Amino acid sequence: MRTLPLAKVYQLIEPGPVVLLTTSNKGKHNIMTMAWLMPVEFTPPVMACVVSDENFSFGALFRTRECVVAIPDAKLARTVVGVGNCSGRQTDKFARFHLTKAKAKCVAAPLIRECFANLEAKVVDTRLVRAYCLFILEIVKAWVDPAQRRPKMLHHRGNGVFAIDGRQIRLASKMS
Amino acid sequence: MRTLPLAKVYQLIEPGPVVLLTTSNKGKHNIMTMAWLMPVEFTPPVMACVVSDENFSFGALFRTRECVVAIPDAKLARTVVGVGNCSGRQTDKFARFHLTKAKAKCVAAPLIRECFANLEAKVVDTRLVRAYCLFILEIVKAWVDPAQRRPKMLHHRGNGVFAIDGRQIRLASKMS
Repeated sequence: MRTLPLAKVYQLIEPGPVVLLTTSNKGKHNIMTMAWLMPVEFTPPVMACVVSDENFSFGALFRTRECVVAIPDAKLARTVVGVGNCSGRQTDKFARFHLTKAKAKCVAAPLIRECFANLEAKVVDTRLVRAYCLFILEIVKAWVDPAQRRPKMLHHRGNGVFAIDGRQIRLASKMS
Repeated sequence: MRTLPLAKVYQLIEPGPVVLLTTSNKGKHNIMTMAWLMPVEFTPPVMACVVSDENFSFGALFRTRECVVAIPDAKLARTVVGVGNCSGRQTDKFARFHLTKAKAKCVAAPLIRECFANLEAKVVDTRLVRAYCLFILEIVKAWVDPAQRRPKMLHHRGNGVFAIDGRQIRLASKMS
């Protein structure tokens, strides 16, 4: 995996992909599936996400203030749904879904080798956690897998229906 | 346009579409293009979004606490980018881009007839506006255009590159 400049991180979050979120708490690594996320700032890259307090990952994220946001290609769709359908309370999801941990640089949570991008993140604002389980994360280090060319993101449309990135178009935009 | 049950609204926001946001302030209607949004609650549907204070719409949204989130099909891509590339300070964007206003039920901001979905929204939390221009909106009424079957959403990947929804897959998911 190679480093991605932090100024490009929003380009991975803005399209609305389904992602995997890893945490490390008291020596235990866990993964959850997440689809409620958006960018909030370009540089340094800041994002918002919702992690329900019914998720086992909520406690780990709230206590450690760290995580990794890993972005899977659509070919991992079955794994992504499987991870979302069980709880880290009972399951070692890395083992069960044959996902490979890699060591992060700035956080204790692990990267996921099979994902085309991995974003190391620190919780920087918890003011809306109580009301909406909404966390503000700053991305402090970003990685991409150069072997995965032209990855396709998954977009959840509810009830287990996903749209996969199709055709790309380029339009002269001043929107950054 | 027909009413969409509020419990289904998250399905329109969760995939991460590029949307148009309309406001009405002192009798003036405006539109902006927005791609930083996510769901926050299922029912009643609540969403978060970022509207930069450099946008003309920021003042209207902050003052009136109301807006419409209109979701365009990918065939409107050129219009969406055009709307994002000019400011309502100088331009009547409805006239310039031949978009048709329709009257909303619960807010003064107009619906956009050409969009396949329109969500009437009220600002319900401004605690993160100062820090991140992040607004929390509750959707109070939702409309879909039954004539637009199988709409395809646009997902912005930065620098004017957009992915259009491609193939859909269905996987037995317990994720709602």
